[in-house]
Amino acid sequence: MGDPAGVGPEVAARAWAARREHGLPPFVAIGDIAAIDAVWDGPVARVGDMEEAVRTFAEALPVWHLEDSGPLTPGEPTPAGATCALHALETGIGLTRTQASAALVTGPVSKHALQGIGYTHPGQTEFIAERCGVAATNAVMMLAGPALRVVPLTVHIPLAEVPERLTGELIVAKARIVARGLRRDFAVAAPRLAIAGLNPHAGESGRLGDEEIRIVAPAVEQLAEEGLVVDGPLAADALFAPGIRDQYDALLCPYHDQALAPFKALHFHDGVNLTLGLPIVRTSPDHGTAFNIAGRGRADPGPTIAAIAMAARMAAAREQSCAPAK
Amino acid sequence: MGDPAGVGPEVAARAWAARREHGLPPFVAIGDIAAIDAVWDGPVARVGDMEEAVRTFAEALPVWHLEDSGPLTPGEPTPAGATCALHALETGIGLTRTQASAALVTGPVSKHALQGIGYTHPGQTEFIAERCGVAATNAVMMLAGPALRVVPLTVHIPLAEVPERLTGELIVAKARIVARGLRRDFAVAAPRLAIAGLNPHAGESGRLGDEEIRIVAPAVEQLAEEGLVVDGPLAADALFAPGIRDQYDALLCPYHDQALAPFKALHFHDGVNLTLGLPIVRTSPDHGTAFNIAGRGRADPGPTIAAIAMAARMAAAREQSCAPAK
Repeated sequence: MGDPAGVGPEVAARAWAARREHGLPPFVAIGDIAAIDAVWDGPVARVGDMEEAVRTFAEALPVWHLEDSGPLTPGEPTPAGATCALHALETGIGLTRTQASAALVTGPVSKHALQGIGYTHPGQTEFIAERCGVAATNAVMMLAGPALRVVPLTVHIPLAEVPERLTGELIVAKARIVARGLRRDFAVAAPRLAIAGLNPHAGESGRLGDEEIRIVAPAVEQLAEEGLVVDGPLAADALFAPGIRDQYDALLCPYHDQALAPFKALHFHDGVNLTLGLPIVRTSPDHGTAFNIAGRGRADPGPTIAAIAMAARMAAAREQSCAPAK
Repeated sequence: MGDPAGVGPEVAARAWAARREHGLPPFVAIGDIAAIDAVWDGPVARVGDMEEAVRTFAEALPVWHLEDSGPLTPGEPTPAGATCALHALETGIGLTRTQASAALVTGPVSKHALQGIGYTHPGQTEFIAERCGVAATNAVMMLAGPALRVVPLTVHIPLAEVPERLTGELIVAKARIVARGLRRDFAVAAPRLAIAGLNPHAGESGRLGDEEIRIVAPAVEQLAEEGLVVDGPLAADALFAPGIRDQYDALLCPYHDQALAPFKALHFHDGVNLTLGLPIVRTSPDHGTAFNIAGRGRADPGPTIAAIAMAARMAAAREQSCAPAK
């Protein structure tokens, strides 16, 4: 559910209400059942294991109640609520790691509220990676929608640090994880990757910066030698044009806004944030807690529906790709 | 026409062929008539002044033949072709400066070929600004399409130089020109501007960079004191989402790809590149010479049609706004 005072509980409930329309698989909302009751009048089934959740899913929203997080007002985060969100995350990771659940969908949390209870990870992804025994640098953020998939090669760092943080090692390591993820979780047999340049027009042969020549091109060459289908460095603006972006299974961009601004321009309502490189399938609606509208029934459940549907497709693809050969 | 060996001549001719469908006003193609003959079988009228162009426009593509640019092969630029493109640009500027023409639409040129004949301006815009007696820094690039208008505050510089080149003075100066341009050329009485942050999530209150606090916020404050409606610094990715971008008449972005990647994701086929801050109306299709497909009838005339239609609307709005009050 994410933070009980955010929009997480209501979008989970409304995703359940839209389960038939969107063909969603059974899921369970984990957290404080009072957070659901505060924003949702529909049927709820309190469950204690995944089998029960699957049995009741057709008739009621299954809720795995963890703890009473105290007096709850939508829009007003509390330390007890942040603690509940963290416990919900841990429970979800555990259920998915043990394969009781096929995938984990994480609701929006408040970084600020989590920091207030001593949480030191920059986001949920780093926590999940740690609990799964994976280095945070190997947990790769991808945003995926019907028209395109993007990967920011650097993420939450100041723009001024991007040129020094973009290394050939980083590009090669992330591109390998992306290619493996596309094969395993998206059933793309031979992934085609594009890597954007750092500078405008991909540097115009060095006239607008030399990182393409020094860093990106050698990384592309190395990846090609490893047998991957990789184009780059490509001018970022042309790359996102229809007809160009469609030629690739994922677009890798040196920095956050270069990937996310065009992605959100196209996929604000149906974009999914997911993590590659983990032993579990993990997706997330690509929005925050939206405390300012929580509890008013205005939050769009579309991204959560898309995140649940994509998690299901990824889990199915992974099961297929990991099945022993017959 | 731009470079006679590029796609400029054929998209000009095909825009003429689509004149009724798109309600295009009379226009004249300026350059080497042989470049039109090489790629176009339709009717052509060789004209020597704008009145003649207007008279013949319904029946034939008016062409203002400047000079024989020598043996012509589409896709193969020559120094004589670059010279002809430059002369066409000068002629178009002159016709528009003297109000014989209401607007200038520039076709694609080859920077490389122009450099070969001693042209030292980075692009056509700087040349036009100079010929119009305007400092190049006051000629502001805007990309405009049906869904949004964007302005990159820095343009063709390496990404590593963006943080130091983004100053409060630059933001204020360009925002003023944009607001004035929206009033004069787009009939927007009270322009609403958004200014994106430099860093991811607009710096997250300083955690991901301090340029928003040091540079962008004070500039926004100054512009607001001058009476402009300006929001910012805003997170660039959220800013481009539908529902957010629609709240503004123009989105000003600190650097090239932050503005152009989302713009081209939405407006690859109907985006127009235009220049604000000039004494003349000037637009351009937002693509290059495309030498690789020139002469094969494959070039999309859509951007040229959009550039001509927008130039006409801008010229009409400017005439209206500059008319003496009755």
